[in-house]
Amino acid sequence: MGSNSFGNIFRITTWGESHGPAIGVVIDGCPAGLELSEQDLLPDLQRRAPGINPHTSPRREPDQPQILSGVFEGKTTGAPISILIPNQDANSQAYTSLKDLLRPGHANFTYLAKYGIFDHRGGGRASARETACRVAAGAVAKKLLQLFSVSVQAYIQQIGSIEAAPGDLTFVPSSPVYCPDPEASRLMVAQLDRVKAEGDSLGGVVEFLATGVPVGLGDPVYEKLEANLAKALLSLPATKGFEMGEGFKAASMQGSAHNDLYEKLEGKIQTKTNSAGGTLGGISTGMPLMGRIAFKPPSSIGKSQPTLTTAGESATLELPSGSRHDPCVAIRAVPVVEAMVALVLADALLMDRCARL
Amino acid sequence: MGSNSFGNIFRITTWGESHGPAIGVVIDGCPAGLELSEQDLLPDLQRRAPGINPHTSPRREPDQPQILSGVFEGKTTGAPISILIPNQDANSQAYTSLKDLLRPGHANFTYLAKYGIFDHRGGGRASARETACRVAAGAVAKKLLQLFSVSVQAYIQQIGSIEAAPGDLTFVPSSPVYCPDPEASRLMVAQLDRVKAEGDSLGGVVEFLATGVPVGLGDPVYEKLEANLAKALLSLPATKGFEMGEGFKAASMQGSAHNDLYEKLEGKIQTKTNSAGGTLGGISTGMPLMGRIAFKPPSSIGKSQPTLTTAGESATLELPSGSRHDPCVAIRAVPVVEAMVALVLADALLMDRCARL
Amino acid sequence: MGSNSFGNIFRITTWGESHGPAIGVVIDGCPAGLELSEQDLLPDLQRRAPGINPHTSPRREPDQPQILSGVFEGKTTGAPISILIPNQDANSQAYTSLKDLLRPGHANFTYLAKYGIFDHRGGGRASARETACRVAAGAVAKKLLQLFSVSVQAYIQQIGSIEAAPGDLTFVPSSPVYCPDPEASRLMVAQLDRVKAEGDSLGGVVEFLATGVPVGLGDPVYEKLEANLAKALLSLPATKGFEMGEGFKAASMQGSAHNDLYEKLEGKIQTKTNSAGGTLGGISTGMPLMGRIAFKPPSSIGKSQPTLTTAGESATLELPSGSRHDPCVAIRAVPVVEAMVALVLADALLMDRCARL
Amino acid sequence: MGSNSFGNIFRITTWGESHGPAIGVVIDGCPAGLELSEQDLLPDLQRRAPGINPHTSPRREPDQPQILSGVFEGKTTGAPISILIPNQDANSQAYTSLKDLLRPGHANFTYLAKYGIFDHRGGGRASARETACRVAAGAVAKKLLQLFSVSVQAYIQQIGSIEAAPGDLTFVPSSPVYCPDPEASRLMVAQLDRVKAEGDSLGGVVEFLATGVPVGLGDPVYEKLEANLAKALLSLPATKGFEMGEGFKAASMQGSAHNDLYEKLEGKIQTKTNSAGGTLGGISTGMPLMGRIAFKPPSSIGKSQPTLTTAGESATLELPSGSRHDPCVAIRAVPVVEAMVALVLADALLMDRCARL
Repeated sequence: MGSNSFGNIFRITTWGESHGPAIGVVIDGCPAGLELSEQDLLPDLQRRAPGINPHTSPRREPDQPQILSGVFEGKTTGAPISILIPNQDANSQAYTSLKDLLRPGHANFTYLAKYGIFDHRGGGRASARETACRVAAGAVAKKLLQLFSVSVQAYIQQIGSIEAAPGDLTFVPSSPVYCPDPEASRLMVAQLDRVKAEGDSLGGVVEFLATGVPVGLGDPVYEKLEANLAKALLSLPATKGFEMGEGFKAASMQGSAHNDLYEKLEGKIQTKTNSAGGTLGGISTGMPLMGRIAFKPPSSIGKSQPTLTTAGESATLELPSGSRHDPCVAIRAVPVVEAMVALVLADALLMDRCARL
Repeated sequence: MGSNSFGNIFRITTWGESHGPAIGVVIDGCPAGLELSEQDLLPDLQRRAPGINPHTSPRREPDQPQILSGVFEGKTTGAPISILIPNQDANSQAYTSLKDLLRPGHANFTYLAKYGIFDHRGGGRASARETACRVAAGAVAKKLLQLFSVSVQAYIQQIGSIEAAPGDLTFVPSSPVYCPDPEASRLMVAQLDRVKAEGDSLGGVVEFLATGVPVGLGDPVYEKLEANLAKALLSLPATKGFEMGEGFKAASMQGSAHNDLYEKLEGKIQTKTNSAGGTLGGISTGMPLMGRIAFKPPSSIGKSQPTLTTAGESATLELPSGSRHDPCVAIRAVPVVEAMVALVLADALLMDRCARL
Repeated sequence: MGSNSFGNIFRITTWGESHGPAIGVVIDGCPAGLELSEQDLLPDLQRRAPGINPHTSPRREPDQPQILSGVFEGKTTGAPISILIPNQDANSQAYTSLKDLLRPGHANFTYLAKYGIFDHRGGGRASARETACRVAAGAVAKKLLQLFSVSVQAYIQQIGSIEAAPGDLTFVPSSPVYCPDPEASRLMVAQLDRVKAEGDSLGGVVEFLATGVPVGLGDPVYEKLEANLAKALLSLPATKGFEMGEGFKAASMQGSAHNDLYEKLEGKIQTKTNSAGGTLGGISTGMPLMGRIAFKPPSSIGKSQPTLTTAGESATLELPSGSRHDPCVAIRAVPVVEAMVALVLADALLMDRCARL
Repeated sequence: MGSNSFGNIFRITTWGESHGPAIGVVIDGCPAGLELSEQDLLPDLQRRAPGINPHTSPRREPDQPQILSGVFEGKTTGAPISILIPNQDANSQAYTSLKDLLRPGHANFTYLAKYGIFDHRGGGRASARETACRVAAGAVAKKLLQLFSVSVQAYIQQIGSIEAAPGDLTFVPSSPVYCPDPEASRLMVAQLDRVKAEGDSLGGVVEFLATGVPVGLGDPVYEKLEANLAKALLSLPATKGFEMGEGFKAASMQGSAHNDLYEKLEGKIQTKTNSAGGTLGGISTGMPLMGRIAFKPPSSIGKSQPTLTTAGESATLELPSGSRHDPCVAIRAVPVVEAMVALVLADALLMDRCARL
């Protein structure tokens, strides 16, 4: 089993707490022969890292990953790839005053109930810090996918009340909030600034798009591609919803409008539209894989909140001025969503090798 | 691995095609000592069965399950429970004319691409017929959950453009579409009648509610309760979206509004509201578990559709008059959603026994 | 997990008790496109069936397997293959007198302790009847292996005090005890007749030999080929030991004698000897895979034995005259050992597809 | 899946090569609340470490484990426990001359064939260095077992031609070869000295004994306790055989002699003898768990050996004078065998919590 592992063949196991000495991931099942170095992991880790972007948490982590095994003379060997990321800027003292308070919307109540013990420093194992490991592993998955011409991109589709119009993805890196729609991007920044000043936080939606996905990935019935994407993305902290293609809008549509009709283009059978978001019956259609994941507003806010102590006494929660939090986790989640989609696709790609004689 | 299996400890494996001699499920990991008989499986199988409800497919399947193993003198023994459901009303001939046509929105294109072979009769393995096995297994999970005072209920929250107002769940069995809101129920039936007459189909949303769930179920980080619910529900045919609690609405909310504040009620710590839908950090809070799953409109419609043959030639798809399809799969999916939620909870309940010393 | 499942990609799940209505197996992960029919399963099931051989139990089971899913127009489809074998000659009454007695060497004591309930009829789930399912699944694995020129054979190497000299495997089918050494075969039969007349039983050793195994199967470090063979074979009832190549004899050897030296033969690198039994570091070398499995003497004997009741009172165990038992289970285990080796190899063959880019 | 993972609930994942910067293990599924510190890991790591014992390899590794996660204020939290052991005395240069030679009895041929690439330095991933991780994880499993009064001990039962008589286990720590029989211990040392002087190596047998094991551990049919022990132990490098209780000797016994008869002692039902070695039907009987594992003589010997290059040219293998090897790996394997048995038992203990209502 292993509740800290994900994937069947391309399988990751992550470990580490927010304020321990390090976090890390072991990748088991990456095929031998893939060129890999620590440089390959840096760009995505940097996009995820806090402190680069004024609209994310000011905690600075250089996130210098170390590959400790599984690579020899620049190539993967088939042995497990262990990646370690030291924790460097952990300010544990900031959390001492909070350790006996139930924090609304935060996991300390449930962890305490389940385990009877909780490493409260920075959220411990429940911290989004764990997602750096996913990003490192996802970068390896992306390198593998590249060889098969599959690429994955994610971007902000909504922050608070602002939704992006379908836009030009080349604009994404220029947007401080990774949004493809310049006008929406500007409005999102303004809304973030306002909410941050209030000591509050905002939810958001990340959209992902994978292109070059071959027909045939995904294993019915319980390892459907969309089922694994849903699990992958709902395993991220602060996520509340997932949809593929038209998603919830499909509920109000009629079949004649929703069905994607087939056409033959340059000798290849494909669909004219992509309401389905790239899968049918849990198997990829060859059309772009497309979906969205909703993030709730971060529970850690500057405003004071009435709460209880772990013993059940009334109390007030005020985050210390030194504490550093994202006003909207969806922004930094963009590379994490890419990583999870890449991990699901890499796994499905390998599993598909066993589907036929 | 096993792509036809679901669950870690309480684990099911389903098999069978729509038009083969039978379908079935093996439940491995059900604790010994649970009272169980075939009678326990019937009520949910009957709710799922077509033909009872004028708004579902007219195919009649008595769905008489046979328990072939794992029960001795009325109790489970710890051995695998094999349940077989004969297929009785399979009209395979109706599908012969379709076998060389790509059916828009249907899985035959992707199955053929993946496996190079497809049992096209009634949708083969891709058929929603497989969900009868889930319902049978889910009934066993429900019996287990009952002993721990956990109950699961699902109902229609939306069909087409009609959304139900939050209503009285006691009305659900009286509604032909399992909807708690009498007025919405009436409008849904009217819309279904109209769309069915057009030879078209409608999407819908099913909501689930589990009460009595103890604090502490769910295993971070990749076996989060909501991640397993998402996988369970997205593994159902025709599903396009999943959300917990406020779901996608949370994306437009601020943290101060979304956070559920704690209170002490009759000596027990709980939250005053339930925006979260019953989990924090992937672990149940003790509040009702609540979420929704979106179903697309069925792809099999009466209207003729332009399409291609499997060889890529232009063709027209017209379902034979003898073919029987649901105008809205969400309705019959109600007990299936309950089953999947029950399976996830039963598994989490058992896994939780290993969390502490 | 699933304690009634075996294999990673080519994965089987078995179910059923000795005296229930049927037993069965679900094979998940068999590649699509394999020709398969019930006829393919019969020869091995017949070799395992009791009653054919005077030196095995007289219970007669025709063992007519039914393939209920996963095969369409004579080929596997990638969907799970469900095989059901009805139980026909179950004489449950014969066991009623035993139900409150602890049977020495038998699993009823441990099952009762673990589960608090035991289907005592014919051994219930602990019965060797379950191995018929392994043989059916193994026949499918063998068909798959055939396409890759891999073949598996097992035979008796020892019964009681009689050991076979390395012999001509073509003699095996002619030996009533599946032994390649004619002289040893004769002596084994004589010893079995004598021991059976005494109301006693004998242990034995089965040797397996797989040829045509390509270099490279097996996944270090915990899915080593020999580790999976060991688990596969020790999961059989009544097994007490396993060895590969020289096995326990290697413990008294020196490295210079045990090491297999390399040679190039017809352009192919191989070893001159095969002390290793066909693996190095958990990965197949391309030499024949060879090992042995020891079976204890069956615990069910005609002689009366002092024992306790389940309540701990002194009692005497006498099997009813109608009870039918094998004097040496190793004989009927021959096709079961072949099946388990084939299952391990089929799984390793598929897993190997994911090892390299 | 994960071929570098072992266990179902108490699950380990190991990583690292002999001459990389470090090796490590992630333990997932250890219950929360267990007292744990690095001190708990040292004694077993020291017993496994080379250089302490003149009869093992002179390579010195302090093996200072670092616990990087999963422990907070001295107790496990339920989060994964990551243990890292730096590699300090790796002399990679010693292996350069060997990198193009096939080493008889060594895994480089099979790794190269499987992966097309091999980290040859010190055996890379195939090195017994990996077993230090098992020992570290096993020490955690032992601490868990202690709380349930289960203890595991292993010792040398045979080296080369010398077999130990059943002896007093309190003598084991005093024997330079961990043998309970003082006279045999002396003879083993003499034989090792002689063989080492010849530049050769010896095989051996390690016996394990677990006491305090409760009745009921092990999950039929494929997770039988002995099946998992067999897999655990055959996954160790250089192992060639496994047996429980009487093991291969059972093959020549009659049922009336092999069956263990029941008795009631101090109100507890147990068996008078223990031919079975502590399990029946794959489930522990409450009697001591006892078995043996055979190790081949190490393939790395001082004597020169004719061989081939990886390209198939004739060559001579001579280990450089600087290379350091064990004359008999069984000796250092003693704590590793204990670790593997402890891991299997800890896992079975947790799984058993889910067996009954």
